Amino acid sequence: MKIVLDAMGGDYAPKIIIDGVFKALKKFEDIDFILTGNEKVIKGFLPEDNSRISIIDCKEIIENNESPTVAIKEKKDSSLVVAFDILKKGDADALITAGSTGATLAGSFLKIGRINGVSRPGLAPFLPTAINGKKVILIDCGANMDCKSINLVHFAIMGSCYAKIALGVKNPKVGLLNVGVEEHKGNDLTKEAYDLIKKLNINFAGNIEAREIISGEIDVVVCDGFSGNVALKSIEGTGQMIINDVKNAFKGFLGKIAGLLVLKKLKQIKTKMDYNYISGALVLGCSKIIIKSHGSSKADTIFASIEQAKKLFDADILSQIKEEIKINEVQ
Amino acid sequence: MKIVLDAMGGDYAPKIIIDGVFKALKKFEDIDFILTGNEKVIKGFLPEDNSRISIIDCKEIIENNESPTVAIKEKKDSSLVVAFDILKKGDADALITAGSTGATLAGSFLKIGRINGVSRPGLAPFLPTAINGKKVILIDCGANMDCKSINLVHFAIMGSCYAKIALGVKNPKVGLLNVGVEEHKGNDLTKEAYDLIKKLNINFAGNIEAREIISGEIDVVVCDGFSGNVALKSIEGTGQMIINDVKNAFKGFLGKIAGLLVLKKLKQIKTKMDYNYISGALVLGCSKIIIKSHGSSKADTIFASIEQAKKLFDADILSQIKEEIKINEVQ
Repeated sequence: MKIVLDAMGGDYAPKIIIDGVFKALKKFEDIDFILTGNEKVIKGFLPEDNSRISIIDCKEIIENNESPTVAIKEKKDSSLVVAFDILKKGDADALITAGSTGATLAGSFLKIGRINGVSRPGLAPFLPTAINGKKVILIDCGANMDCKSINLVHFAIMGSCYAKIALGVKNPKVGLLNVGVEEHKGNDLTKEAYDLIKKLNINFAGNIEAREIISGEIDVVVCDGFSGNVALKSIEGTGQMIINDVKNAFKGFLGKIAGLLVLKKLKQIKTKMDYNYISGALVLGCSKIIIKSHGSSKADTIFASIEQAKKLFDADILSQIKEEIKINEVQ
Repeated sequence: MKIVLDAMGGDYAPKIIIDGVFKALKKFEDIDFILTGNEKVIKGFLPEDNSRISIIDCKEIIENNESPTVAIKEKKDSSLVVAFDILKKGDADALITAGSTGATLAGSFLKIGRINGVSRPGLAPFLPTAINGKKVILIDCGANMDCKSINLVHFAIMGSCYAKIALGVKNPKVGLLNVGVEEHKGNDLTKEAYDLIKKLNINFAGNIEAREIISGEIDVVVCDGFSGNVALKSIEGTGQMIINDVKNAFKGFLGKIAGLLVLKKLKQIKTKMDYNYISGALVLGCSKIIIKSHGSSKADTIFASIEQAKKLFDADILSQIKEEIKINEVQ
């Protein structure tokens, strides 16, 4: 397997990208890596030469504040666009970037395109849940602002495939994000989608409320990209707020003593809510494996994203999705 | 001032409704109360007779699992419908219920109706923020599943009025819930709404991401009812999950000792995230003051809702909204 990594994307690039790759080199003997970016800069961070790493030199970087579509079209010598070109040519089996989400999506759509039969790809991250060690997949969380019901149908089918491989769940429970659990609830979109999804050959758990997303009871949560983005960022923001409050509770002399006594457990909570320890979001429905790692990714995140890419490649997720979309074709 | 309370609505009714009223009786000398519900049951919970409390006997109760519209139309002798009838007749200046949200909204729309010029009322609760003691108003969080941009414009105007009175902020910052802060971001609805809201005579802070809702930087967050519901319940669910995790960290011998050392501060965090201590959500835009208190309201919540109703009545919020809607009329 060959993975191309945008070495210049993310808050701590290229160091953490390279560190993540070196960690993966030791664990996986059958993956070769291509790094795109400024060769001189990258070489400065390489701990040693390695025959399984090649560098493709390019001079530009796409920043977070640029218009994604314009950047993808015009910055042809950027680390991200060059990575997409390598993926497109078939010189790599997967792409990983911690760069701009918008540009990653624009590149996925403009350079790579959809799996045959998929109406729209969706951005599908993992979220932590109340059950330790269990994750939930949220799709879509930002790729499609205005969805049609057929998009949600495809998110449900693809999410189910993805959960089987990535979470190792045999018969993943797929829930439709809504304002209440009753069948007739919601907006025009969810009402229409509900009627279509319930006919699919998947384990449909019906409507779920947003508070159930991270309950651990559901494996895949399906929604339009606007609502998914709202849910994701509400969960992240609340997590950060309370963790800060808890941290502040341990200030002062007594607080510090208390902190020492429960340090390990508190760290576990922080780690759980820290998206850095969870592998990246998959652009689910594209005809290649594309993983968007968190902007503030650390080496462990990049390693986790590489591990995830390998799992998806080994299981041939792209063929599986194509097959499932065909079987479940909505009339 | 006269307030009618649905004495039978909510998980702990009628006891906590009555307790809340008795607390308010002591604090406010100029409010009379009307309780609707089973007189015999209510009298069983009354600590003493009081000339400022009158009871209107009715035999039915609207349950959470009933169809709201059907229930409001058919259960004419229910505590909620009777309360709405009293409000409609003008025999009370405000209505408070901890009963079914759906039925409260249905009653508000069918029995009471909108303020002149308001396209749609929205459900507007308070949420806690990262800044201690500061609250944020979220509108709409469930009354309107499919919104037009004019609805969001009215939410912005009404939310600004409401924040001035309820939060005591002179020039409330109003943010539009979106997936990014840039002007062109979002779905068709938010793009259209942005262009209209920026022309209003309010302190518009532009787009905000969901993680900023509870940052404390914004006073009013405007969104469609579906997204608002997703945000509200994501925040609630995450809060509960982490607080449970923190609780579990204090199990065992060392944990219990640690807990004693920081008990007070941890309780403050729990209280902050406990919606029971925050007064109810206003059905903002109706031609009467209608407050929906949390289903699991305690006496303190009911008291807070009474206090809130008095504040809104004293400031004549309904006239203020009517005026502001007229001034800001969108062409």
